[in-house]
Amino acid sequence: MNFMNQAFLLAKKAYSHDDVPIGAVIVRDGKIVARGENRVQKSKNPTLHAEIVAINKACKKLNKKFLDECDLYVTLEPCAMCATAISFARIKNIYFAATDEKGGGITTNAKIFETDKHLWKPNIIQMPEHADKSAQMLRDFFKQRRNSKI
Amino acid sequence: MNFMNQAFLLAKKAYSHDDVPIGAVIVRDGKIVARGENRVQKSKNPTLHAEIVAINKACKKLNKKFLDECDLYVTLEPCAMCATAISFARIKNIYFAATDEKGGGITTNAKIFETDKHLWKPNIIQMPEHADKSAQMLRDFFKQRRNSKI
Repeated sequence: MNFMNQAFLLAKKAYSHDDVPIGAVIVRDGKIVARGENRVQKSKNPTLHAEIVAINKACKKLNKKFLDECDLYVTLEPCAMCATAISFARIKNIYFAATDEKGGGITTNAKIFETDKHLWKPNIIQMPEHADKSAQMLRDFFKQRRNSKI
Repeated sequence: MNFMNQAFLLAKKAYSHDDVPIGAVIVRDGKIVARGENRVQKSKNPTLHAEIVAINKACKKLNKKFLDECDLYVTLEPCAMCATAISFARIKNIYFAATDEKGGGITTNAKIFETDKHLWKPNIIQMPEHADKSAQMLRDFFKQRRNSKI
């Protein structure tokens, strides 16, 4: 199974309820254990980014706070909040599609794993082959939102 | 009402269920609108710090994602995850008791509001008159935990 494509399906789900289209899946032993889509608008809660939604579900499903045998796939570079949460959850590998120059917390902007000296550090793998798809989806979303406000 | 003392009552509640004793309250117009205690162990979820629990409750209660007329009182300096979440929630003022040299995200360690150039920045007010009480509670907790493992 292509896990990043599964994350994109969740990004589309976010889009369908007027949330910025970002999706994430958490994988263990080659199987998806939790799915999350950005639901900040839908749930009126600014903490409910796709990654946090997926972590909440995975912890509940696996009944443990450390997801140390798990990987996370997400369509956009995690922000500082999510990157720190992923570290707290001890997720092994973070795979992300597009970088986020404004809100990114890992390779751009906050660079949380460089500035926070005490955080446990997951492996970080960017998947540039998926970057365009993610960036295009985000552009479409913001364009549509601007047009709907005119 | 002394809001920091109310946060300490929540830290004691966290202690009672074997969580690191940290408590937070969110205040609007001189009244507490949400309370949160650290429940990482109790809920087996590493994202459920006192601040996140309080933000989740406040958003639900007020039915909005921006808590822009609210202040947050917390017994320990927020970590990078919580400081970013507080920023996303547009909370006006953060009052905290003790600094956290290892896990702090504001004045120590990550210094998220300096490193993340795009975050909305709340006012940050340390209350040194409450720092000893918070630090002592944390020391007692970790001492007890060490002893219980011998």
